[in-house]
Amino acid sequence: MLKLNSNERMSQIVIHNQTIYLSGQVGAVDEDVSAQTLTCLNKAKNFLEEVGSDKSKMLSATVWLKSMNDFAAMNKVWDQWFEDTLPPARACGESTLAHPDLLVEITIIAAE
Amino acid sequence: MLKLNSNERMSQIVIHNQTIYLSGQVGAVDEDVSAQTLTCLNKAKNFLEEVGSDKSKMLSATVWLKSMNDFAAMNKVWDQWFEDTLPPARACGESTLAHPDLLVEITIIAAE
Amino acid sequence: MLKLNSNERMSQIVIHNQTIYLSGQVGAVDEDVSAQTLTCLNKAKNFLEEVGSDKSKMLSATVWLKSMNDFAAMNKVWDQWFEDTLPPARACGESTLAHPDLLVEITIIAAE
Repeated sequence: MLKLNSNERMSQIVIHNQTIYLSGQVGAVDEDVSAQTLTCLNKAKNFLEEVGSDKSKMLSATVWLKSMNDFAAMNKVWDQWFEDTLPPARACGESTLAHPDLLVEITIIAAE
Repeated sequence: MLKLNSNERMSQIVIHNQTIYLSGQVGAVDEDVSAQTLTCLNKAKNFLEEVGSDKSKMLSATVWLKSMNDFAAMNKVWDQWFEDTLPPARACGESTLAHPDLLVEITIIAAE
Repeated sequence: MLKLNSNERMSQIVIHNQTIYLSGQVGAVDEDVSAQTLTCLNKAKNFLEEVGSDKSKMLSATVWLKSMNDFAAMNKVWDQWFEDTLPPARACGESTLAHPDLLVEITIIAAE
């Protein structure tokens, strides 16, 4: 088991038995939902690449939207981002997030 | 890693290292919560059987209810459905889902 | 695959391929959010120790708070609890839980 990018609260990357668990990724509070979605996905991708994996190896994604009114806008960015690879399994629900201006959080499990 | 039943947005089935990740399953918008729960569970079971697994191999389930007022009705169907096998680990929370008439979403991780 | 502490609805512990899936843990309805957080974490730890694992092997945690107003109080207990080990990957959202007085639910995946 390997834990990387850890602070006192969480590890951004945890690897065990060929599987990578990432912490929930969020965007910046001054971004709109499209930009936040892109930031989440790119941060997850960068963490995966840091340990030799990549976006094509995402196994499952849990998407939390602050408001389902942003479902279409999030999906537009999401669908484009996965155009070059098969997307992971996905579940999407509505959840208020840690800061009122956070509109989306994406949690990824990936293959090493 | 194997991704099956994929469209541009998600893969319904992802297999890696003897573990199966399913997308969140939902019922039909004209069903009540009991029927939607049954549909979710049967869709997950069918996906598992499609890759040689079955309902007894469900490892974890995340249940999102649109309203906790439906907790008892969902559980009644759930408990009956698992009468012939040991149930998975489970977490259940409340979350507005992608369509206003979707009342429950169930996300399964299973053993191959 | 091994399922332990099972009732008709869920198994508290499921083990497959060196990975442990726990059901979502909750505290007692008469506890405040700090005490409930501690109860959740200790219950998860006890289940892990029951199968020869321990808190240092937590891979991922999903935290659902009934209200994000309790984010700071939950984190204070959380951060102290993990002071002696690297914490898991984490995602935290807001979700109404199964009982109105349940304030936090924590779902853990761990290494065997």
